[in-house]
Amino acid sequence: MGGELASYDRALIFGVYTAINVIVFISGVLIFMMQAGFMLLETGAMSRKNAINNIFKNFIDLCVCGIFFYWFGYPIVQGDSIVVDWMRDLGFANRIESNSPGPVVSLNSDIALFFNFAFAATCVTICSGAVTGRIATYAYLVFGAVFSAFVYPIVAFTVWNADGLLHGVLHDFAGSVVVHALGGFAGLAGAIMLRPRIGEFGYGKGQVDAFRFAGSSVSNASHNIPLSALGVFMLWIGWYGFNAGSTFAAGFDLSGIDLSGAMVAPEQFADAVFNQLVDGFGTVIINTTLAPCAAVFAVMAFFIVKQEKLYISDMLNGALAGLVGITANADAATAAQAMVIGVISGFVYILTVMALYKAKIDDPVGAFPVHGTTGVMAAGLFALTTGSMETGPTVFGTQIFYAAMIAAFGFFSALITFWISSRIMYVIKVLGKSKHFDYGLMPRNHLRVTPEQELAGMDKEIHGQDAYAIHINAPGKLQTARGN
Amino acid sequence: MGGELASYDRALIFGVYTAINVIVFISGVLIFMMQAGFMLLETGAMSRKNAINNIFKNFIDLCVCGIFFYWFGYPIVQGDSIVVDWMRDLGFANRIESNSPGPVVSLNSDIALFFNFAFAATCVTICSGAVTGRIATYAYLVFGAVFSAFVYPIVAFTVWNADGLLHGVLHDFAGSVVVHALGGFAGLAGAIMLRPRIGEFGYGKGQVDAFRFAGSSVSNASHNIPLSALGVFMLWIGWYGFNAGSTFAAGFDLSGIDLSGAMVAPEQFADAVFNQLVDGFGTVIINTTLAPCAAVFAVMAFFIVKQEKLYISDMLNGALAGLVGITANADAATAAQAMVIGVISGFVYILTVMALYKAKIDDPVGAFPVHGTTGVMAAGLFALTTGSMETGPTVFGTQIFYAAMIAAFGFFSALITFWISSRIMYVIKVLGKSKHFDYGLMPRNHLRVTPEQELAGMDKEIHGQDAYAIHINAPGKLQTARGN
Amino acid sequence: MGGELASYDRALIFGVYTAINVIVFISGVLIFMMQAGFMLLETGAMSRKNAINNIFKNFIDLCVCGIFFYWFGYPIVQGDSIVVDWMRDLGFANRIESNSPGPVVSLNSDIALFFNFAFAATCVTICSGAVTGRIATYAYLVFGAVFSAFVYPIVAFTVWNADGLLHGVLHDFAGSVVVHALGGFAGLAGAIMLRPRIGEFGYGKGQVDAFRFAGSSVSNASHNIPLSALGVFMLWIGWYGFNAGSTFAAGFDLSGIDLSGAMVAPEQFADAVFNQLVDGFGTVIINTTLAPCAAVFAVMAFFIVKQEKLYISDMLNGALAGLVGITANADAATAAQAMVIGVISGFVYILTVMALYKAKIDDPVGAFPVHGTTGVMAAGLFALTTGSMETGPTVFGTQIFYAAMIAAFGFFSALITFWISSRIMYVIKVLGKSKHFDYGLMPRNHLRVTPEQELAGMDKEIHGQDAYAIHINAPGKLQTARGN
Repeated sequence: MGGELASYDRALIFGVYTAINVIVFISGVLIFMMQAGFMLLETGAMSRKNAINNIFKNFIDLCVCGIFFYWFGYPIVQGDSIVVDWMRDLGFANRIESNSPGPVVSLNSDIALFFNFAFAATCVTICSGAVTGRIATYAYLVFGAVFSAFVYPIVAFTVWNADGLLHGVLHDFAGSVVVHALGGFAGLAGAIMLRPRIGEFGYGKGQVDAFRFAGSSVSNASHNIPLSALGVFMLWIGWYGFNAGSTFAAGFDLSGIDLSGAMVAPEQFADAVFNQLVDGFGTVIINTTLAPCAAVFAVMAFFIVKQEKLYISDMLNGALAGLVGITANADAATAAQAMVIGVISGFVYILTVMALYKAKIDDPVGAFPVHGTTGVMAAGLFALTTGSMETGPTVFGTQIFYAAMIAAFGFFSALITFWISSRIMYVIKVLGKSKHFDYGLMPRNHLRVTPEQELAGMDKEIHGQDAYAIHINAPGKLQTARGN
Repeated sequence: MGGELASYDRALIFGVYTAINVIVFISGVLIFMMQAGFMLLETGAMSRKNAINNIFKNFIDLCVCGIFFYWFGYPIVQGDSIVVDWMRDLGFANRIESNSPGPVVSLNSDIALFFNFAFAATCVTICSGAVTGRIATYAYLVFGAVFSAFVYPIVAFTVWNADGLLHGVLHDFAGSVVVHALGGFAGLAGAIMLRPRIGEFGYGKGQVDAFRFAGSSVSNASHNIPLSALGVFMLWIGWYGFNAGSTFAAGFDLSGIDLSGAMVAPEQFADAVFNQLVDGFGTVIINTTLAPCAAVFAVMAFFIVKQEKLYISDMLNGALAGLVGITANADAATAAQAMVIGVISGFVYILTVMALYKAKIDDPVGAFPVHGTTGVMAAGLFALTTGSMETGPTVFGTQIFYAAMIAAFGFFSALITFWISSRIMYVIKVLGKSKHFDYGLMPRNHLRVTPEQELAGMDKEIHGQDAYAIHINAPGKLQTARGN
Repeated sequence: MGGELASYDRALIFGVYTAINVIVFISGVLIFMMQAGFMLLETGAMSRKNAINNIFKNFIDLCVCGIFFYWFGYPIVQGDSIVVDWMRDLGFANRIESNSPGPVVSLNSDIALFFNFAFAATCVTICSGAVTGRIATYAYLVFGAVFSAFVYPIVAFTVWNADGLLHGVLHDFAGSVVVHALGGFAGLAGAIMLRPRIGEFGYGKGQVDAFRFAGSSVSNASHNIPLSALGVFMLWIGWYGFNAGSTFAAGFDLSGIDLSGAMVAPEQFADAVFNQLVDGFGTVIINTTLAPCAAVFAVMAFFIVKQEKLYISDMLNGALAGLVGITANADAATAAQAMVIGVISGFVYILTVMALYKAKIDDPVGAFPVHGTTGVMAAGLFALTTGSMETGPTVFGTQIFYAAMIAAFGFFSALITFWISSRIMYVIKVLGKSKHFDYGLMPRNHLRVTPEQELAGMDKEIHGQDAYAIHINAPGKLQTARGN
């Protein structure tokens, strides 16, 4: 609690305190639900032979993040870590800690931690979709640990902590850049380093015989679209927590409200506090609804104009792109602007999908088009909400510039992290001679599973289980008919 | 905020304001989750060849509703639209706007909008289950737009707005009639207009050869019951938001509580306000739990008495019928009455299923039995809660009468909407000569997909994707065994 | 409301009241979501031929619990039942009702009922996983009714009601023992009584021929791992409600806070109330996150050390074990202790799985290792949180002792309940000669389905439906190619 709160009405403070803490707790749970959403989206959109491995990756990165963000990451976000001290020394953070931020009713520290953890877990898991189907299990674990402990926290500190260099410079309401672009560009780095799955973009044509190459191509098909669709619904639901909760992520600032005197009449009280407390929150909810709706129609319009079929995967991803697009601006946009942002996000998604295809980069579930480019563009689209034709282009340029810086940070951090993890894997492999660690090592760069594992599917090779036994129905019965 | 609030304690007002807004926001998110529930329920209960199309319909009606309800629908619900002005002129709404409703702590306008949007989306999506498997994509889109923009809002205005003709006349707590019966009867209209799927009730026997007719009949089977079951669980969960949130949908009226003086002791305060604020809410939660439980046993008892097997689809639908049944009365019923209402709703469901079967109307997922007849009956069952043998029959008659009026409005609105959309489709088809719009047009009434599309499945024809590739497991591996 | 509240600030009381009621309501909904989680986990982990029966069991025990806990169970939990009077007479409850518990802001009675119902439903459903695949439908119904009406309520009364003998003796914050160990040991009793599924541990080798025996073994495989994974994510999400909501399950005690005078400055107010109200809550959330994360790594470490493959089912169950482990201690543990508790819970899970395997007890989804042993151990692990090397062993011993008593109560209650239900089934079978009740009766103990039903699958035999028709895709289309 800020010391300046002393002059405020204690019932007011108490009411605000409980309201924002309850809202942020629930929002954290909703964001946590997005983990299930990503798991379903990616698993359903991927091949059946890697279904369990997909589940495993999404599950284990959550657990890695839980531990590493708690120990290393969150202190950085709070500016209370040796890492931040180094940043201050190097000029990457404001050297003098900010003074008292005024009469702010702040969150309970554990609830704030939980909320921030849910954000970090989202950022880490976004990457998984781009590298899935070929990344070595342990390499992915190292990535998850590094991003949870350092990369995401440094960016979150820089943009959202009052001591961060970009605080007040880059407008990113709930993390279009900090969470989504960062995760999306990390995924792009991974997808480029790993190269495509065997069977995609001609990759592996020389390495495996033509018959197996063709088979792999077939087996790369999305294997369970209804799961993916459920995943997208759950992501949308979770996004209400993501955006709405962010309204109070930094607590609630009472400054500007003069309610210290007992003489303030209830009506004035209502006007002054109610509007500030819940109105911003309400705006966010409406925008978080309208942008994805509009984005879906943008994607659909593209298909209609191009006389294409209505590919459900892209329409579902379109909604997510709309959500990413509004995440930076949910507090500032009007309803009409939210729809425009949604439409633009939908088209950015489509264009990025086409660009990736031309560049022969294999991003199996479209993580980069949904989160990467759209996340950066979202920052730029904040210009729309400034409502000025004069300052608009400047705002657009500034926002895009800083967003691109963060995206590049994510990209190169992922490159370095994956490189380091490939070295670690190599050392373990050589020194340990552990048969176990052979699971998930590629001959050359130690980041990728072996071609044998990839062709056979990681479920069988690494997890020793089969994701489905739907075809095995009541053999006893069938065999009864056979004459017993 | 009502002006009369001036005389109340401002801490009280503030507490009530934050409490009801937080509850209604969370309730809105829970209702939003029902969209995922309906998607799963319908997709799992339908044929595998139309799984993606089912997902698409449930997804796109959400997006349509988001846009159209925002622009057109919600102003009508609020009585602040030219449509309502016309209604006033024609005598379909009270001409003189109601005066100040007293000391009501009202919802934040955006949170109220979000909550109302979630209701509208539910109403629209209910219909989808009855017309699925054969409706043309664009015809369904037009339906969704018209119902989101006009039909649902007009009904919601009429029953729940203080200026509506049925306000205070028809007791429908959370929309058994306004949402469920309206959507259910619209679905019935659609199911009748479209006629059955090929292979059901002998439909298509003359049009397609016997072999394909038989094949279609087989492929109409429910393809993924676990998805449907998850859908029902999610609907039940969402229903807590649906009903509990409705307690505060119109804000919270402080009249009758005399707390203006500083002399009121805390105990009196507690008794006066606490009981009013959370007690109604708690009653709703309990009733929303007991009614579906009882309804499931009603369905199960029917199966046991009839010596039938325990069909899970009908038992799951039974729970939904119980939820529809209590929705009109969740505020008024005692726990015992809630169970009785549940049992009656279960039987109404069963009887309607049998009636539809006799009438050869193809409602693939039972949308009409769950929402239509049960919704109307729910209004009548309000009579149970009045607790008087004398007024009971009158209340029953009045409630059923107005509910039937609304159901008829839904039915005929849907007829007209579908007819209009068939004309629009025709014009687009003729003028546009667009190959694209051919997807989803039936030779005769332009509402239905072609027999070729229906037989082949819309997933392949309209969406160009296959919902499942579960049978494709690791071809590389298999082919390894083939001798490499 | 306690009478002593009179001296407190009414704004404070009102704020606390609304806060805890809203939190507990939402927590109840989250716990309700665990029903869907258990359904998915068990259904996916079981054979495809019993998928619908699994859904049915999880669905009907919810409905049974709704009715029976309302009528019989909750009054016991509240100490307001003739059952509790008997307990008092027999010395199993404190004879003199506790005096006024001080200035406690209590929950709304209906919200408290809903929250308690969600707990009871969890306890009952835990057992279902251990007996699935072979238990007779009606026997399971009787079990659900008895546990909802009496067994769980008596234990909950004894541990959590101020008049209960173990109140203040056994520390079980949110029910590691009361809910999980009780349900887990009941499941163990069921699994032992029922003996393994045909095809497991050689069971049925003499009863059915070798060919059908082998077929049954194959068909017992987990049929849909992604469903199970989603189930575990939903359970984890729901557990936030389970644990966080428990912070306020007994209301909120204001004693120790001296805020009666108007002179208390806002800062003191904040320190005094805020910390008490939300801090405990926040601690619970963090612990509920860290323990399962750590447990998953314990299971993974076991696999790595043992050079085993990374079985996803056990890693998912590991998270649940971690959650069970922290449930008794979520209020008391530090973050580091939560991780230690998680690790130990993970190992207890693994050891119990191996023990069950050696004992040839067939617990198809691992309900006992997750909830039973881990639940008892969780009580003992409370010793870790006392932070004293001297009292630690005593605390450990005391906690384990009482937890084991409760576990034994659950075990023997289940034995007796299942025995009674086998007698009831027998009487119904003989007297009723109903063909219907033949579904679900085993020749010998009347608890188990017949071998024919088990081999053929209960979906077909009892429910008359097939869970999947994924293989039936567009026969019309295929047959078109056949030459029409």
